[in-house]
Amino acid sequence: MNGLMQQQPLLISNLLIHAERHHGEQEVVSRRVEGDIHRQTYRELARRSRRLANAVAGLGIGFGDRVATLAWNGYRHMELYYAVSGSGAVLHTLNPRLHPDQVVWIADHAEDQVLFFDLTFLPLVEAVADRVKTIKAFVAMTDRAHMPTSSKLPGLLCYEDLLAAASDQFSWPSFDENTASSLCYTSGTTGNPKGALYSHRSTVLHTYAAALPDALNCSARDTILPVVPMFHVNAWGLPYAACMVGAKLVFPGPFLDGKSLHELFEGERVTVSAGVPTVWQGLLTHVEANNLGFSTMRRTIIGGSACPPAMMRAFQDRYDVTVLHAWGMTELSPVGTVCTLKPRQLELNGEQRLGVQAKQGRSVFGVDMKIVGDDGAELPWDGKTSGELMVRGPWIIASYFKNAGGDPLVDGWFPTGDVANIDTDGFMQITDRAKDVIKSGGEWIGSIDLENIAMAHPAVAMAACIAAKHAKWDERPLLVVVRKPGAELTRQELLAFFEGKIAKWWTPDDVVFVDAIPLGATGKMLKNRLREQFADHLLNAA
Amino acid sequence: MNGLMQQQPLLISNLLIHAERHHGEQEVVSRRVEGDIHRQTYRELARRSRRLANAVAGLGIGFGDRVATLAWNGYRHMELYYAVSGSGAVLHTLNPRLHPDQVVWIADHAEDQVLFFDLTFLPLVEAVADRVKTIKAFVAMTDRAHMPTSSKLPGLLCYEDLLAAASDQFSWPSFDENTASSLCYTSGTTGNPKGALYSHRSTVLHTYAAALPDALNCSARDTILPVVPMFHVNAWGLPYAACMVGAKLVFPGPFLDGKSLHELFEGERVTVSAGVPTVWQGLLTHVEANNLGFSTMRRTIIGGSACPPAMMRAFQDRYDVTVLHAWGMTELSPVGTVCTLKPRQLELNGEQRLGVQAKQGRSVFGVDMKIVGDDGAELPWDGKTSGELMVRGPWIIASYFKNAGGDPLVDGWFPTGDVANIDTDGFMQITDRAKDVIKSGGEWIGSIDLENIAMAHPAVAMAACIAAKHAKWDERPLLVVVRKPGAELTRQELLAFFEGKIAKWWTPDDVVFVDAIPLGATGKMLKNRLREQFADHLLNAA
Repeated sequence: MNGLMQQQPLLISNLLIHAERHHGEQEVVSRRVEGDIHRQTYRELARRSRRLANAVAGLGIGFGDRVATLAWNGYRHMELYYAVSGSGAVLHTLNPRLHPDQVVWIADHAEDQVLFFDLTFLPLVEAVADRVKTIKAFVAMTDRAHMPTSSKLPGLLCYEDLLAAASDQFSWPSFDENTASSLCYTSGTTGNPKGALYSHRSTVLHTYAAALPDALNCSARDTILPVVPMFHVNAWGLPYAACMVGAKLVFPGPFLDGKSLHELFEGERVTVSAGVPTVWQGLLTHVEANNLGFSTMRRTIIGGSACPPAMMRAFQDRYDVTVLHAWGMTELSPVGTVCTLKPRQLELNGEQRLGVQAKQGRSVFGVDMKIVGDDGAELPWDGKTSGELMVRGPWIIASYFKNAGGDPLVDGWFPTGDVANIDTDGFMQITDRAKDVIKSGGEWIGSIDLENIAMAHPAVAMAACIAAKHAKWDERPLLVVVRKPGAELTRQELLAFFEGKIAKWWTPDDVVFVDAIPLGATGKMLKNRLREQFADHLLNAA
Repeated sequence: MNGLMQQQPLLISNLLIHAERHHGEQEVVSRRVEGDIHRQTYRELARRSRRLANAVAGLGIGFGDRVATLAWNGYRHMELYYAVSGSGAVLHTLNPRLHPDQVVWIADHAEDQVLFFDLTFLPLVEAVADRVKTIKAFVAMTDRAHMPTSSKLPGLLCYEDLLAAASDQFSWPSFDENTASSLCYTSGTTGNPKGALYSHRSTVLHTYAAALPDALNCSARDTILPVVPMFHVNAWGLPYAACMVGAKLVFPGPFLDGKSLHELFEGERVTVSAGVPTVWQGLLTHVEANNLGFSTMRRTIIGGSACPPAMMRAFQDRYDVTVLHAWGMTELSPVGTVCTLKPRQLELNGEQRLGVQAKQGRSVFGVDMKIVGDDGAELPWDGKTSGELMVRGPWIIASYFKNAGGDPLVDGWFPTGDVANIDTDGFMQITDRAKDVIKSGGEWIGSIDLENIAMAHPAVAMAACIAAKHAKWDERPLLVVVRKPGAELTRQELLAFFEGKIAKWWTPDDVVFVDAIPLGATGKMLKNRLREQFADHLLNAA
């Protein structure tokens, strides 16, 4: 017997309708590629999104067609989020940090029909334009005055011209909530990129969960500045959450340096921000160097990779900004866990509390998680035992776009490729990527802990810990280190630095100093390359 | 084209699984009918719910069967919430304040198979037992020691015996999220009661929305005490929200007097509570008389009827407890709007802010609302124009159980029967029930405003304002008043009290003093009876 409730599909367009109707006066502020600050309300955003929906239809985009973007965080990108998905087409956010070859490969694989791009990316677009197979129109996300005077792109269109020519009358269509809404490719360090194809249902459910008090805690009283890019898993869902709750949104555009961000934080009275640790480092350096502070920002959500403890202390102790660790993946829309403390943990002293905050956190309702051993059996939640993290839930992928890589699920669970432990309070801590873990004599050594210790040494700029082949133990940890400019540091000094900080047998066998560690498009260290390069280092040294 | 996300149905059992897995140590504290305080964790609640699911199956309850309760707020009632709905059966919360005839009528209409009841309601159950047609088993929600020694109920079962005999191994079944989960009858003041049949989908979506920061704002840091009964629209969804977020729950059982509640608030460190104004009046009286305060409670959610401004002032100014107005209906699961202020409104001075807080609030995402005139056309959101409030959304009924009363929707919208205005910020204020509004010469006069003014007079205990027939204006307002014990008050004095507080033509034409105003089962004034009694009062007086 079914309940007798209204059948209203969960649609992304409803988020925009709600924002317009209930928070029409709320602001969306953007620092533009053009350099100035642009302000509009949700009411205007909604009206322009309707115009854009008409314009997109005019470009021949139909239900299910892919519309690509190469764009920063800004109001025009947000209009595309709603206009494209709301129309029943699929928004495909391309990562502009990828190599042109990868952009071509992904655009072809996605069969993108139209590409919208910020002016910054004109050279990239020009480099790929005559190689991509399916894109039939290119739109520069700017106004007539800022259009490039000469471009080798044939028939380049102007975003504001398209909008001006379109009607603002548009009825958002209603359709099955399982309809595809957006597409985001993972930046795999090996193999071809794979696409996560989100649905309206998964996006709206994710938005509800992400906005909860113990998750990202979004309300109409917040001013949210997503530093995390809108081309990186939908800026962790914040452009959707902001509409759901009517929060003020502030977009930084391409200006992610400490000075630009700090000006926006203060000028727009930002209360909460979100991004990866590397961006915060630049911000903190600027704030420290200029004796500044944060007068309204009270929370910063950090994900992508673990927040170094020193950064956490700086934010919390010096600037009264709470650091909220979150963990997710492209395949998870992305939010899986958030490290919001339970009441008991709020009573811990500083260092103990920091120990909990260093974890990736507890799952939001909707994400079910477990850790499993090599045999697939579930492991205990004791805060010590590590295993591969498996997740399931309505905003987690069932398969990749076009079934790339085959069925990724194991008994209905998505294997994250992360190695983690979970404590008795349900707080999960990533100890490694499954492929980065070092298997020494049958025991697992997590590379992240070792890297964090190395990074805490004042002379270390960057450190990667990798598995190197070993005659007796199969694998042993090898540390690859970039020294800070001008700093002196020997192998012996650095290894001595590990004493007392970790089990003795976890201590790396050797240290290699290099000038640079290769980074991927999202700033992650490409440890697979280091593994190839240094695979036989210990064998040769022995 | 569909997205490629996991198809996980939204099920009530997932809330319990989440609470057990991620908040297993969190407490559920209940003041029992037996008089003592009972404590258990979510882990124990989950285990007992699995036992109960086995026991309920053992009573012959199958998929879609209705299981009735007559019970206070307590852990056994909560176990029934999860065991019955989680099994795929339907939990039917009967209102014990109804007349036995109504209980029989509703139980028959619902075709309840089993009735679980708190010992308090043994006399009521005995009064209806041989009249109800479909109930084949009666279960007293107590242990063996407290079982009634003699009862005329045939084969009366003992709750704790059933649990003790059942296994705690039970796999919650997976099924279509549109499956019926629970049933709640409206306490209509006219006509037969009608049932709202909720689904798992509607309940889980409602829970997400209700827990949001700008709605009921539920987190693991909260200790929630729902005074609003679990037989009254699922205690506004708090038993579900608490599991979703891992909040501590405190159940007051039958002890709703000020002293008992205050003891629980303080003893269990309650942070947020929810109930109707009448309960809070008793609490405030007790706190004032004994010079007490609230050391942990910071928010109280008030719904059911409007919170008198004097009560709001007392909570906020004297005790630092924020009053949060909420509005909903049985047909809405129930949450529709919550009066959480926007940033601009937080800067208002005390009286202006109180003016906003007196409204029923703004809609949570998922509930779409509008006001319409007699012709069905949408009216403007100007904070002045009143019309009938219409709502739609995934946790709003499409029809009543067994199609009672036919199709209630108008173009897909549910007509609430409330008359309201909506201001430019989207804040809705109920000005009357549609059937209570006074139509004077083609203009509408809201009865609630007039009652609030009368209630503010120190000599008035209760006041109802009703439409009485009028020779010239069709209808004119008539005030029916109960004086406070020992207080003196004349018609002229009371009418003079309205001067300057309201448009002159809104002033009631006359005052009738009575000893008592008839109340319905949920404490609402039965104004239709007064209308019948005093219909011709003004004609006769003229």
